[in-house]
Amino acid sequence: MEYKISENVKSVKPSAIREIFKYMSVPGLISFAAGNPSPESFPAEDMRTVADGIFATQASSALQYGSTEGYTPLRNQIKDRLKNKFNSFSENDELIITTGGQQGIDLCARAMLDPGDVVICESPTFIGALNAFRVCGAKTVGVELEDDGISIDGLEKALKENPKAKILYLIPTFQNPSGITTVQEKRKKVYKLAKKYGVIVLEDNPYGELRFSGKDVPTVKSLDTEGIVMYCSSFSKILSSGMRVGFLCGPKELIDRCVVIKQANDVHTNLFFQMLVSGYLEKYDLDAHIQTIRELYFKKSSLMISALENGLDPSIRFTHPEGGLFVWVTLPKGDSTDIFKTCIDKKIAVVDGKTFLPSPAPCSSVRLNYSTPTDQQISDGISIFCETVNDYIKR
Amino acid sequence: MEYKISENVKSVKPSAIREIFKYMSVPGLISFAAGNPSPESFPAEDMRTVADGIFATQASSALQYGSTEGYTPLRNQIKDRLKNKFNSFSENDELIITTGGQQGIDLCARAMLDPGDVVICESPTFIGALNAFRVCGAKTVGVELEDDGISIDGLEKALKENPKAKILYLIPTFQNPSGITTVQEKRKKVYKLAKKYGVIVLEDNPYGELRFSGKDVPTVKSLDTEGIVMYCSSFSKILSSGMRVGFLCGPKELIDRCVVIKQANDVHTNLFFQMLVSGYLEKYDLDAHIQTIRELYFKKSSLMISALENGLDPSIRFTHPEGGLFVWVTLPKGDSTDIFKTCIDKKIAVVDGKTFLPSPAPCSSVRLNYSTPTDQQISDGISIFCETVNDYIKR
Repeated sequence: MEYKISENVKSVKPSAIREIFKYMSVPGLISFAAGNPSPESFPAEDMRTVADGIFATQASSALQYGSTEGYTPLRNQIKDRLKNKFNSFSENDELIITTGGQQGIDLCARAMLDPGDVVICESPTFIGALNAFRVCGAKTVGVELEDDGISIDGLEKALKENPKAKILYLIPTFQNPSGITTVQEKRKKVYKLAKKYGVIVLEDNPYGELRFSGKDVPTVKSLDTEGIVMYCSSFSKILSSGMRVGFLCGPKELIDRCVVIKQANDVHTNLFFQMLVSGYLEKYDLDAHIQTIRELYFKKSSLMISALENGLDPSIRFTHPEGGLFVWVTLPKGDSTDIFKTCIDKKIAVVDGKTFLPSPAPCSSVRLNYSTPTDQQISDGISIFCETVNDYIKR
Repeated sequence: MEYKISENVKSVKPSAIREIFKYMSVPGLISFAAGNPSPESFPAEDMRTVADGIFATQASSALQYGSTEGYTPLRNQIKDRLKNKFNSFSENDELIITTGGQQGIDLCARAMLDPGDVVICESPTFIGALNAFRVCGAKTVGVELEDDGISIDGLEKALKENPKAKILYLIPTFQNPSGITTVQEKRKKVYKLAKKYGVIVLEDNPYGELRFSGKDVPTVKSLDTEGIVMYCSSFSKILSSGMRVGFLCGPKELIDRCVVIKQANDVHTNLFFQMLVSGYLEKYDLDAHIQTIRELYFKKSSLMISALENGLDPSIRFTHPEGGLFVWVTLPKGDSTDIFKTCIDKKIAVVDGKTFLPSPAPCSSVRLNYSTPTDQQISDGISIFCETVNDYIKR
């Protein structure tokens, strides 16, 4: 039978990152392709203690249906943290718990987008977000990402040229895949442009807590006086990614629409783990735990960066992230799919930079991750990687 | 600011069932409005044992990202159960784990529907499904539900009149809200019509395991030789609804599309609880546990049915379910919203039958639930309910 597939969905391909999994079973392969947090970043023993307490005293409610908006104590804890630590929750805002940060992006997309609408984003950007917009039938338009954040001239041009733009999607801090952080001056200009052209900013901040050097930059959300910024994040990189607990906040009117969609999407997020996160926040010191992750990633990223500095041909550029999970390596020539394959032949897995492009374009970059490999794998693997790409550009 | 909301989403209202929550804090109110399983149906102590085992030996993988399709051992256990117990999984099928049964409906809707497409369904039917279709911009067309299932003449008429119909959504067993089970003869006719008119059947079977009298009827999925039936269900009514673990199966080509959408929706379902369900299925006897739920609901439904038989005016009809959670009461005259309000005044909560209509129509029915109230609440509450509606029709 020929199935009648939705027009919006037809063109959406599974993430290329999934394709890489095919190679993961190759013996001796060293992977820098993951986007996973280090398993050391999960406070498993403390989570076990909280979980057992829930089974002991609150099992009936933890295993029963809950409200679509989420577990109220957890919502209040997150609101307080956003207010006090990030100045990113105003009196006109509301917040819902989402099934991971990804669902926050998806709900915001579904609440706003009709087929043919445009989403403007950094190029390159997170493939999961691009696909959420594409599934809604939206067109994704990329704006060049410079070393200090999105190009402001490029952004204004894109806004002028795309009157159907509804959302400006940004990962301003430790961006995926580039590791780049947008400077404060640019955040202000981005906010002004969004206001001028009447688009909503969707600020995705899954890595914001993972700064290991430099100084914090205020969120775009903290600049919002007009109710035009939606903000999503999650506990995936600081407690557990597998539990799928994130949140989305923003102007109440938009969040109300997202609640209606979430109800028809998954009713609510796993309630037991919402209560577990809430219990963890109450009983333990999340900031102290985050500090250990920052130290771990500082060590791992430093190891990778110095190996790249020592090994790469000077014509090959790479980013120097101050937090997050990724380094973005750009060759002076070549094709990223080719580079990916050349690395795989040497048993090194990286992610083909083209994966992250909002629209097809030439690309000679690849993404490297330092949170998942061991220190030994970083030393050994980056050495092979450097040799491989140094050879590649001499072909 | 005036927000540019998606056209598809504009018309979708939050479920009226949520509205009822406002009244839930009224002191002395007895609620038959829930759709919740009884907390007694959650094997909390056994789940606690499995959970602690996962924390002890598999914490790193349970808290880490997993695959979008779901935890492979659990998928295999469900496939085996579907094959062996329900003859509802063929060699051309694939299965993915979903965030509750609701996400199965939503993914199938998003994979297939474009704005303006039509979904044909029983009238009345599950509001959560109606809203999933509406969020996609689809039109929902209802076909009369008779005592033995959907009207076959009505279905053929609807299929003829709606060439843009893509999905036929059915809850053939212990339907929500009616409690009605479609007889085998009708299931065969429904399948033939779906084939003739080229629509996919989405068979929703969340209550199928909860039969407490009568004989099992084969699923529509078990009749499928052409690859035109998608089938969703969940563990919400037999292990825990709060954990949000369900599944969707059907022709591989359609499931592949659903995987792409799920990846952009929530990446994957809570992995810890997927492993927990898998461990429970391995270690404990699910069928023995289900038997205890059946006995519980047989007792509760019998109590409600005999109270209705004794108390209701003979002109008021109600269904006699052989399983599931609901009884559907139809008055010979009146308006369901009025009836709902009259009951609330007497501190009895029911669900306004209009909530479940695919398109606006006169309605004098309400839904009653027997799984959540205590036996005492059923006795006391149904007595008040009968008096109230008996008076109502005499006005």
